[in-house]
Amino acid sequence: MKVTSIPEPTLVRLTVYTRCLADMVKEGEEVVSSDELAHRAGVNAAQVRKDLSYLGSYGRRGVGYNVLHLSERIAVAMGLTRERTFIIVGVGKLGSALLGYAGFLAKGFKPEAAFDADYTKVGLSIGGVDIRGISELAGFVAANKTDIAILTVPAEHAQKVADELVTAGIKAILNFAPVVVKVPSSIQIRQVELSSEMEVLAHYLNMQGD
Amino acid sequence: MKVTSIPEPTLVRLTVYTRCLADMVKEGEEVVSSDELAHRAGVNAAQVRKDLSYLGSYGRRGVGYNVLHLSERIAVAMGLTRERTFIIVGVGKLGSALLGYAGFLAKGFKPEAAFDADYTKVGLSIGGVDIRGISELAGFVAANKTDIAILTVPAEHAQKVADELVTAGIKAILNFAPVVVKVPSSIQIRQVELSSEMEVLAHYLNMQGD
Repeated sequence: MKVTSIPEPTLVRLTVYTRCLADMVKEGEEVVSSDELAHRAGVNAAQVRKDLSYLGSYGRRGVGYNVLHLSERIAVAMGLTRERTFIIVGVGKLGSALLGYAGFLAKGFKPEAAFDADYTKVGLSIGGVDIRGISELAGFVAANKTDIAILTVPAEHAQKVADELVTAGIKAILNFAPVVVKVPSSIQIRQVELSSEMEVLAHYLNMQGD
Repeated sequence: MKVTSIPEPTLVRLTVYTRCLADMVKEGEEVVSSDELAHRAGVNAAQVRKDLSYLGSYGRRGVGYNVLHLSERIAVAMGLTRERTFIIVGVGKLGSALLGYAGFLAKGFKPEAAFDADYTKVGLSIGGVDIRGISELAGFVAANKTDIAILTVPAEHAQKVADELVTAGIKAILNFAPVVVKVPSSIQIRQVELSSEMEVLAHYLNMQGD
């Protein structure tokens, strides 16, 4: 499918709008204005209209958007209309938490397996997902054509595991290990730095003199 | 301290540069070029130079930056030169994982306490941090003038807990609960949506036809 290029900050906000729209569906709302969506998402209305302009021109001024239709339009524009499979490598506390994270399944991300180097964990199951030994990783990815690997291994193992995933044919990596991992440019990678968000908060606190 | 306004994407990248610089210190590197820093951070060199321009003009073309000095300049510009205290509300898997996250302490974020509604957890300690009952939350925040609260409660409790934190005088909230939480504009809030990053990855996979 051909998709126009959407700037990354817009992509991230679109995922927030999707969640707001899902809340509205639950509340029985059928129509939403850009003002209301902006209020729920915590951004301004002009930003919402700008972001939604990437979906192509639609929506009538003063009438608002059909909630279900808008949600679907965002999903199509982002290419989230098919299920994606993922695995988790590293089943420590964070890996376990992510395995049980309901938000992934709700968004069409299906956990296929988890891997750990600690063989006392092998054979256990978290949230219905089996934990396998790390030695099975490459074979599993190659055989199952897994889309995405979530890396929750210790920093010192992250690059080695990423290399192995790339060789095995992984398409994308979401890295939670606190180290920058290098992959070929053909592989999609997103680095999640949990303390980044804290640093950004601290910066804003500092700016307001707190 | 007066700080010039730094765009948010730059702020986030500055936190990545800081981590790369810390790695270089460990490796005994004393000087870094914008090319080398760009390579480590996974961005292009022009972006690095643009981002560093927010720190004021310094660094000599062709000579590079002193690693320790640059790291310090970033910390000052971001206002990360003082320790910040935080608490965690909701000690499930994710809350436990974050309590044990070494990256926070390394960046000057000090966990003061954790709170949970499950009184069988009260009195336990994770990573040296005591778990208290949720009824103690407001009193603790008011008495200790806590800077930041990390919200890892179930979605349906997030707004109520946020309201309580605001009333008690919290300054900033990092929300991991999968729901948008509203706070007065005087309170800093960052929403961490774990599936957002997966959605952005899926979008890029889709764009490249995978």
